[in-house]
Amino acid sequence: MGLPENSGFDLYSRWQHGVRNLISDVPGVKVGHATIHEGDAHTGVTAVIPHEGNLFRDKVMAGVSVINGFGKSTGLVQIEELGTIETPIILTNTFGVGTALNALVKYMLEQNRDIGILTGTVNGVVTECNDGWLNDIRGMHVKEEHVREALENASEDFQEGAIGGGTGMVCQGLKGGIGSASRILEVDGQTYTIGALVMSNFGAPGNLVIGGKHYDTGKCRADSQKEREPDKGSIIIVIATDIPLCERQLKRVARRSMISLGRTGSYCGNGSGDIAVAFTTGNRVEHYSKENILNMRTFYDANMDMVFEAAVEAVEEAIVSSLYHGKTLTGIRGNKAMGFLEFLEKYEAE
Amino acid sequence: MGLPENSGFDLYSRWQHGVRNLISDVPGVKVGHATIHEGDAHTGVTAVIPHEGNLFRDKVMAGVSVINGFGKSTGLVQIEELGTIETPIILTNTFGVGTALNALVKYMLEQNRDIGILTGTVNGVVTECNDGWLNDIRGMHVKEEHVREALENASEDFQEGAIGGGTGMVCQGLKGGIGSASRILEVDGQTYTIGALVMSNFGAPGNLVIGGKHYDTGKCRADSQKEREPDKGSIIIVIATDIPLCERQLKRVARRSMISLGRTGSYCGNGSGDIAVAFTTGNRVEHYSKENILNMRTFYDANMDMVFEAAVEAVEEAIVSSLYHGKTLTGIRGNKAMGFLEFLEKYEAE
Amino acid sequence: MGLPENSGFDLYSRWQHGVRNLISDVPGVKVGHATIHEGDAHTGVTAVIPHEGNLFRDKVMAGVSVINGFGKSTGLVQIEELGTIETPIILTNTFGVGTALNALVKYMLEQNRDIGILTGTVNGVVTECNDGWLNDIRGMHVKEEHVREALENASEDFQEGAIGGGTGMVCQGLKGGIGSASRILEVDGQTYTIGALVMSNFGAPGNLVIGGKHYDTGKCRADSQKEREPDKGSIIIVIATDIPLCERQLKRVARRSMISLGRTGSYCGNGSGDIAVAFTTGNRVEHYSKENILNMRTFYDANMDMVFEAAVEAVEEAIVSSLYHGKTLTGIRGNKAMGFLEFLEKYEAE
Amino acid sequence: MGLPENSGFDLYSRWQHGVRNLISDVPGVKVGHATIHEGDAHTGVTAVIPHEGNLFRDKVMAGVSVINGFGKSTGLVQIEELGTIETPIILTNTFGVGTALNALVKYMLEQNRDIGILTGTVNGVVTECNDGWLNDIRGMHVKEEHVREALENASEDFQEGAIGGGTGMVCQGLKGGIGSASRILEVDGQTYTIGALVMSNFGAPGNLVIGGKHYDTGKCRADSQKEREPDKGSIIIVIATDIPLCERQLKRVARRSMISLGRTGSYCGNGSGDIAVAFTTGNRVEHYSKENILNMRTFYDANMDMVFEAAVEAVEEAIVSSLYHGKTLTGIRGNKAMGFLEFLEKYEAE
Repeated sequence: MGLPENSGFDLYSRWQHGVRNLISDVPGVKVGHATIHEGDAHTGVTAVIPHEGNLFRDKVMAGVSVINGFGKSTGLVQIEELGTIETPIILTNTFGVGTALNALVKYMLEQNRDIGILTGTVNGVVTECNDGWLNDIRGMHVKEEHVREALENASEDFQEGAIGGGTGMVCQGLKGGIGSASRILEVDGQTYTIGALVMSNFGAPGNLVIGGKHYDTGKCRADSQKEREPDKGSIIIVIATDIPLCERQLKRVARRSMISLGRTGSYCGNGSGDIAVAFTTGNRVEHYSKENILNMRTFYDANMDMVFEAAVEAVEEAIVSSLYHGKTLTGIRGNKAMGFLEFLEKYEAE
Repeated sequence: MGLPENSGFDLYSRWQHGVRNLISDVPGVKVGHATIHEGDAHTGVTAVIPHEGNLFRDKVMAGVSVINGFGKSTGLVQIEELGTIETPIILTNTFGVGTALNALVKYMLEQNRDIGILTGTVNGVVTECNDGWLNDIRGMHVKEEHVREALENASEDFQEGAIGGGTGMVCQGLKGGIGSASRILEVDGQTYTIGALVMSNFGAPGNLVIGGKHYDTGKCRADSQKEREPDKGSIIIVIATDIPLCERQLKRVARRSMISLGRTGSYCGNGSGDIAVAFTTGNRVEHYSKENILNMRTFYDANMDMVFEAAVEAVEEAIVSSLYHGKTLTGIRGNKAMGFLEFLEKYEAE
Repeated sequence: MGLPENSGFDLYSRWQHGVRNLISDVPGVKVGHATIHEGDAHTGVTAVIPHEGNLFRDKVMAGVSVINGFGKSTGLVQIEELGTIETPIILTNTFGVGTALNALVKYMLEQNRDIGILTGTVNGVVTECNDGWLNDIRGMHVKEEHVREALENASEDFQEGAIGGGTGMVCQGLKGGIGSASRILEVDGQTYTIGALVMSNFGAPGNLVIGGKHYDTGKCRADSQKEREPDKGSIIIVIATDIPLCERQLKRVARRSMISLGRTGSYCGNGSGDIAVAFTTGNRVEHYSKENILNMRTFYDANMDMVFEAAVEAVEEAIVSSLYHGKTLTGIRGNKAMGFLEFLEKYEAE
Repeated sequence: MGLPENSGFDLYSRWQHGVRNLISDVPGVKVGHATIHEGDAHTGVTAVIPHEGNLFRDKVMAGVSVINGFGKSTGLVQIEELGTIETPIILTNTFGVGTALNALVKYMLEQNRDIGILTGTVNGVVTECNDGWLNDIRGMHVKEEHVREALENASEDFQEGAIGGGTGMVCQGLKGGIGSASRILEVDGQTYTIGALVMSNFGAPGNLVIGGKHYDTGKCRADSQKEREPDKGSIIIVIATDIPLCERQLKRVARRSMISLGRTGSYCGNGSGDIAVAFTTGNRVEHYSKENILNMRTFYDANMDMVFEAAVEAVEEAIVSSLYHGKTLTGIRGNKAMGFLEFLEKYEAE
């Protein structure tokens, strides 16, 4: 849902949001969560499914921007080389990547009996942030069934905040997690959508900016016991659209996420793995084609400004929305991350 | 001088600026301008000199970030490969690049009788923005003597605003140009400086943000006749420091400039050639060494957060300072760019 | 052992090989294998351990070159950003990556009680090729204990050929696998070593070149039932050295592997994930340092030619050695890859 | 003409060459030279014109691979960002780049009255090698009229060897220069051409390999007075095709040139600026389009293997052809580079 109209936050927006104000406003895109709260485990899995068909046989065009490469995602190298994504995109904690990759491979093998026999392998995209401040990350609590659950739960309607892969995340000193938003463009009488979903875990207490206003989130440090280590951040940004863009243009769109990070007060800290992945359902690449030549459509680059702006706005709102929907959570070792609304009530109201 | 204390603008700053609040606070760094106003020509050259010695024989370590590669700079490819800069950095208009490169090569050949005979060639770094809105850019008015003049004028004290390479630039719908600022860090009892100089020419009317506040610079469009073409932007960002950083770290610093662009309202538009070059005088590479092995020092990456923050702040203030010092200019075809102070007086005062 | 002196192959070599003619000639480097032959499973794991200490606390400087990014390795993005490797390097089959990553993370967590609590996470480097022509890759037969076995077996003496991660690999139409070689340089009276280890799985029947001579390996196709699918290739190249190089230089060294591929007849086919990783034990980066500033040493780039040549030679010989040591193997679905020596005897002797 | 049938050299070739065996076999591609021999000046300019129309208004899709970035070319950054070339490609000596860029800009301004007024600027592509061993490179003898001459001379028939930009070049210890070759592919009953043109100036005496055979070109050192400095190399590689490829694929094709370098004995030495540019006339991008959406066609990546092979072969033959056509030249300071045929006659005949 992004930010509700009455949230009180004034993000500078030029473009309208879509019906749900979620990444799933892009037709075909679905998102599912599996959330784990067991003892000291506060973690989970979020899955973004680019379209409802067979993704391996009908790949989506894609681009990646490694904004700050202090991260452990898988699958990015092949997106860069081939310009396509052929699996759902999984978001989880750093030490869940291996298990999530195994689960994703098995999911793809089930759907495609040819992989590894009649054709090559499959490139699973698994992204991560470190939720070790709240979650027993060393316990490696993400299991393959959680990935399967997130994939099977995937829907156009999904929750934001401390849920799925975002369960244990911390952002700018507050409770981070999953956020999403969308924007609508009209070209040649046709309506296009650009949506963003983030798993926010970046920044340091005191840096938060929303709509140009600084929030000294460091004020709640006492409540949160001690200062969070500076180098445990990261943000995963997924941008989806149905605009016909080529892989180069999608990479350009992904790169603009850094503007959104700047708007929300990030410095892209040394230890923050800031990764943006952008895909379009508007250009598909068949794995097996009867044709030798692919016909594709792309915006002229002269039209990209509106796409850039809409993407920057959607990513910015998704970040703020991840905070807005984050509820206070006390996790492992008594570490606590305060929800933004609680923070506002306690420290900003007078 | 960056922004004066009484400028009324409230940039969020964590780090102190240096004595001059200019890139030349980094010891050894000098800046010179040549400004051209002749008929319809409103353009010029700015030179940044990394240190006072023989740059070819005593190179500075350097990194580049191509934020948006819609630009025509020279020399960037070799900086990426070798991690060094071996000439002054020239900033001029797009069609002045060839002449500036010729002048720069001749300047280097004079100082180094060995180049091209006893050793290889030299990699001139020339950067550019398109000042065609105000300047008769097709007239190619930058001559080799202007480059020489800028090099010879170079000093620790220099002016900002519509001067040198910045003479004809336009930024966020206002008069852009040259801006500079600096920040000071202290580590192990030693004081380090990080300075920025920009040639601002990016953005579109209405996008300007300073200290979180939007300025609808589009209001003065009527004054400026018509909307400026959207795709004629660019910003050149030069970051200097004496912190011992390696080329990889300097590239990381340069990349953070995009955060500063985000803070000042840029979307890194399609047609904007946004290039950041960072160098350190704290690591030198001799062209001819008696040694086979170079001893160098670098910050641990864990220390980079303060460097990133200071760089982001310096670049942000340099951008705002380029506007602050820009005086209204009417150029070719009667095109006009209003100075920021005039804009504020006319449109923001009540 | 690389190629034995009496192999009959005449690789053009300018530099001497080390004592073992293996990557482990670089002091501290060890290699271990776990080999799986169970039913249709013909696969395994190879581990390269950069040095004997605590790799997380005492990282090696490193660089990566993605020659052709049709590959699914993990950990490369962070090597690019930070210029270090902090775990052993695992080589296995494509669908073993998730399990290998899990095993590697657990191995690192055991050794480092601080990871995920007092400090950040750890970046596991796992590389892969597709061995699906001979191995039941869909069966995902690599288990965590195999990774552990390879790590624990690691030694300066190790076997080449169809072993460890190379068990099921196919190269240029013949049996591929693990190969290794080394070269020695002397600078300032000090001896340095550069070693290579490859997992060869690239190319198509008929393309093999050794020492300038073409081998029509397609001749044995009848023996191998049918032509191998063109798009199932890949090669993983690990280059180790004790030369003091920086991360930029290591990337340059890694990139030269493509020359070695050219010398052995590769075209870097579309479906070949060709990845080269280079590290040096000659520059270490402590995870926890009492100092803020790291002192490091690097060769002047003017000295790099000898490093490039030695690396190209070592990688070329490692590729040929992987073939030389590969024994004929019949795998899943009766697919067969002939060993090079058998091929030579049957098809090249007259 | 590439290598004549009776050249005696046996390059391994799988694909047929085109009618001329030149880059100009790609319909529309033309090449022109201006050659300078005046006193100690032995240099020149070569122009490759992608098609006969207005290149600025009708850009060709393009990709670049910086194989080794010790080079001073201009225009590469924008090709990477936008995936297009909008001017002829100029090849000249390193210190001719500024002048060539000026001439190229003026040539484009003449043809396009809108540039710099109604639209943005233009990205001139100028590439270079250092011909200082034979040419008085410090004298900067390339003048704008030479560039104009090369552009106006452009034709489908052109000479190879020590001519145009290649006049003063040296390769693998022999006379280098311009070489060209082509290959033909057939897909869906349609014939496609891929052509290469190189300006060869790389390598060191003794490294030359042709068709797998080493030539000890160091033997003629006495004839050439003394050993050439190791770090003065470079090769410029231009690949043209009419195959419908996207910019990402063109970059992949360009990257494969490194295989051709490996086949001819290069190690991509430290000081060698090895740059490959690939473009296709099969995908055009209009500068001014009435449409918002561009329809384009690309090969499926599964078809790229044949393109890679044909490109590798064409570049390899172009390199050898540049040597084959190079006549012995004595230049500045009595430095001499022996032509390959003279070398063969003197040192290889028995």
